[in-house]
Amino acid sequence: MSTPLAASNARVKEARKLSRRSVRTERRLFLADGPKAVEAALTVEGCVVEVFATPTALEQHADLLGGAAVTLVDERALASLSDSVSPAGLVALCRHLDAPLDRVLESSPRLLAICADVRDPGNAGNVIRTSDAAGADAVVLAGQSVDAYNPKTVRSTVGSLFHLPIAVEPDPAVAVRAAQGRGLTVLAADGAGEVDLFDADLSGPTAWLFGNEAWGLPDELAALADHRVAIPIHGRAESLNLSTAAAVCLYATARAHRPR
Amino acid sequence: MSTPLAASNARVKEARKLSRRSVRTERRLFLADGPKAVEAALTVEGCVVEVFATPTALEQHADLLGGAAVTLVDERALASLSDSVSPAGLVALCRHLDAPLDRVLESSPRLLAICADVRDPGNAGNVIRTSDAAGADAVVLAGQSVDAYNPKTVRSTVGSLFHLPIAVEPDPAVAVRAAQGRGLTVLAADGAGEVDLFDADLSGPTAWLFGNEAWGLPDELAALADHRVAIPIHGRAESLNLSTAAAVCLYATARAHRPR
Repeated sequence: MSTPLAASNARVKEARKLSRRSVRTERRLFLADGPKAVEAALTVEGCVVEVFATPTALEQHADLLGGAAVTLVDERALASLSDSVSPAGLVALCRHLDAPLDRVLESSPRLLAICADVRDPGNAGNVIRTSDAAGADAVVLAGQSVDAYNPKTVRSTVGSLFHLPIAVEPDPAVAVRAAQGRGLTVLAADGAGEVDLFDADLSGPTAWLFGNEAWGLPDELAALADHRVAIPIHGRAESLNLSTAAAVCLYATARAHRPR
Repeated sequence: MSTPLAASNARVKEARKLSRRSVRTERRLFLADGPKAVEAALTVEGCVVEVFATPTALEQHADLLGGAAVTLVDERALASLSDSVSPAGLVALCRHLDAPLDRVLESSPRLLAICADVRDPGNAGNVIRTSDAAGADAVVLAGQSVDAYNPKTVRSTVGSLFHLPIAVEPDPAVAVRAAQGRGLTVLAADGAGEVDLFDADLSGPTAWLFGNEAWGLPDELAALADHRVAIPIHGRAESLNLSTAAAVCLYATARAHRPR
């Protein structure tokens, strides 16, 4: 077995630069941290370039690594690649996964989540995870949304980043119009919306439009949607957390899509 | 106007000790940080002992402070009481709010959330916020759940901590049996549950039992519930985030409780 690479090794240093969004974007590479993420990444053909592993983790997780290219690193080198407080010994160097919006829409999705300017990595990751669970066909990160490959986003998806297509579209209005052009009804999730979620017709192909966690959806963007839909607030809370609201909307739609 | 107290002042130092759970529990006091939390705290009679405010914040928020007892502190003293990265100049010293479980149940609740061993402050706070929004009558923090007065929990509730009764019960089984004794159907949220959420009868008085974010509900506790209910997973996600799952369950129940 070769000697594990140290944190000062040039390859490890190069991989470490992927903690910066600019470097991730330029190289179209990112790091997936921990056995669950690595396992999910390995299910996507052509995604994983190599897996950095400590000798201990390699032994422990030999099964899930299968035929992957493994680079042995020491504990310190691994910790320098991980954003976890207690790194689990495996980090995969992965190629970006995002699909062109057009291709996502060509597959006739029935349920789509469009995030416009969702900035918090945990929220974005949680929306991706919930979209996966609710059976959404894809997630669109639109506008100034957080990078899908931010380490915290990747971790919050708990593997779902590798389960469904993610499209990136700098202009949320383009995403809304493209979805409508493909026959999806676009519903803006908006606390001030005129339609109550539980009165809304969710039976057809539906794209949900979710806004920023602090300021919601800009009026001109929400106006492009077919309807503005509000989750009813029964108590005295002012609003719901963004990813919580997304879950309630996505699951209400999944329920309406069930065969009867 | 009196001179603002410094961080070294004895009263400020005493208040600062409330960052420790043991001190909060012993004194039955806690700190609520920021204008929104302070405003919500002031709506609860007898809750606020005093409000620590910087001279700037006092001027800016004079309206919401009304007749509250205000103690002027300097910026450093305020920052030492706040757990926020950018403190907003107001921190309220509050009395504990939790109500005895019996009293909560005497009010014939129709929707209740029982958290068993929910450990993450953000998750617990988000469950309290969502419970408020979904119209739940109370939240029970049971077992080894996080302290409701943890600064992160308080912040994550976005004021809802002050909107609905919170009961604390060290033994989750006692909470389950007490709810059943009052005619509530107890539903254990459990990914391996035998009833699909969207097939479940949620029309009567319902108590949801939510487990720990990592290991869920212990079998012997879930077995005490009337049914184990699973949120259907349509995609390849393994599970949902705890507070996300709670939101989907609570809102499905709120929907079933609506007059038709």
